[in-house]
Amino acid sequence: MTLPLSRLSLNTATVRAQWNLAQCIEGCARHGFGGIAPWRDKLAELGTEVAARQIRDAGLRVSGLCRGGMFPAADAAGRKAAAEDNLRALDEAVAIGAECLVLVVGGLPAGSRNLADARAQVEDGIAALLEAARPAGMPLAIEPLHPMYAADRACVNTMAQARGIWERLGEGVTVAVDVYHVWWDPDLRTEIAAAGSAGRIAAFHVCDWLVPTRDLLLDRGMMGDGVIEIPQIRRWVEDTGFDGMIEVEIFSEANWWKRDADEVMEVVKTRYLSAV
Amino acid sequence: MTLPLSRLSLNTATVRAQWNLAQCIEGCARHGFGGIAPWRDKLAELGTEVAARQIRDAGLRVSGLCRGGMFPAADAAGRKAAAEDNLRALDEAVAIGAECLVLVVGGLPAGSRNLADARAQVEDGIAALLEAARPAGMPLAIEPLHPMYAADRACVNTMAQARGIWERLGEGVTVAVDVYHVWWDPDLRTEIAAAGSAGRIAAFHVCDWLVPTRDLLLDRGMMGDGVIEIPQIRRWVEDTGFDGMIEVEIFSEANWWKRDADEVMEVVKTRYLSAV
Repeated sequence: MTLPLSRLSLNTATVRAQWNLAQCIEGCARHGFGGIAPWRDKLAELGTEVAARQIRDAGLRVSGLCRGGMFPAADAAGRKAAAEDNLRALDEAVAIGAECLVLVVGGLPAGSRNLADARAQVEDGIAALLEAARPAGMPLAIEPLHPMYAADRACVNTMAQARGIWERLGEGVTVAVDVYHVWWDPDLRTEIAAAGSAGRIAAFHVCDWLVPTRDLLLDRGMMGDGVIEIPQIRRWVEDTGFDGMIEVEIFSEANWWKRDADEVMEVVKTRYLSAV
Repeated sequence: MTLPLSRLSLNTATVRAQWNLAQCIEGCARHGFGGIAPWRDKLAELGTEVAARQIRDAGLRVSGLCRGGMFPAADAAGRKAAAEDNLRALDEAVAIGAECLVLVVGGLPAGSRNLADARAQVEDGIAALLEAARPAGMPLAIEPLHPMYAADRACVNTMAQARGIWERLGEGVTVAVDVYHVWWDPDLRTEIAAAGSAGRIAAFHVCDWLVPTRDLLLDRGMMGDGVIEIPQIRRWVEDTGFDGMIEVEIFSEANWWKRDADEVMEVVKTRYLSAV
């Protein structure tokens, strides 16, 4: 069955070198995408209220706000700053009508090798943020990142780890499943089933893993150009009842960020229909 | 307690840009290392018999032969070629008195996205090789590689996955624990305990994870220069009774491969004593 474009969402990182948020909103509408997922830097440039109105006027859903998180810090002042910034992110997510606030949870504080402590700080940080997120009705979506980011971006690296957190913290904690980060996981199918059947999958992100991958962060591929069996993972996600947005998020310094943004949007649409 | 140099082994990859195998053997002896772990390309250059004699004469242990594996292939001919090459690797491991044959199991065959099938091929390949390895008394040491290598080097990416294989295939299948590949794993401690208490840890490799890491393969760090809590992982390994060699394996195109090899050996020794 052909996927409807109404479920296709553009993560603005995909064209971040080419377009500001206003252009992304206009571009999504013009290309028939159903949704958008802004990053906070783009949101700040345009202003949250202006962005919210433009997104609403364009008839777009907001599959998520990227991003809260980055909880671990070397000291109490750093943790407090992170907590405050996360409250601002939560307000912004509410203001633009995001379906979730995506959490890239953070890695080791500078100078630390204590991964267990960083992981404990993450859980504490999410628990604190949840106190505000629950009354706001805003799902917090933990995005397990690929283990190659454990040190500097996110020390939650598997769906099973995220499950531990949502099981312990309860209602309001969900996951963002990004095929790039989890495709290698031998337990992926069972963990997707566990999260989905518990109603905890708040977001589904796609791109592809290139061989070779030339940069740890900025060499992600367009769907179909890599080795991830994306349709299979999508089926696993949808078998749990998920019928939400499919968000395309591609960091690609050497390729897609260098192309005309409208061309990128067209290729995203084509591959969404053929390789997702 | 200070680690004895008798337990320190040089994986020849650490100075592969500077030294051939004869120089590595001589260098290990001169610097007081207890062991060596050759790569097969270096072994082929020198000749297995010559190498075996020189290693024996130098009084070095061989902590492992790098490497067998690379089992998955696109067709039967490819699988047959891999199987034959693995039998040769096994013979070489026996000839040089290696304590194990390290298996880097291989990733997706060219053109394939079928990770489950690649993993099945790996297990079939190990099972076949085991028929020859068992009578030879040569442990096959599966090295779970970091998930960032799942596509192109090894689709066994966690200790738990390796455990599944050694549990199913039985005697003769072991693991090589390399801190670089497994440090991020939330289940590392329990999986090390499971493998060690079953007598399945055949090798322990160290280097470090640099922040930032600039290349997926060739930017590994010297122990102490990165974020891995190496002494803690070593304690977990040794708590299971492991008292084997500690093998230093560093791929470092931009740094250590550019330095004088004797300087590298000195730094390895120093860091072995201070950061392992």
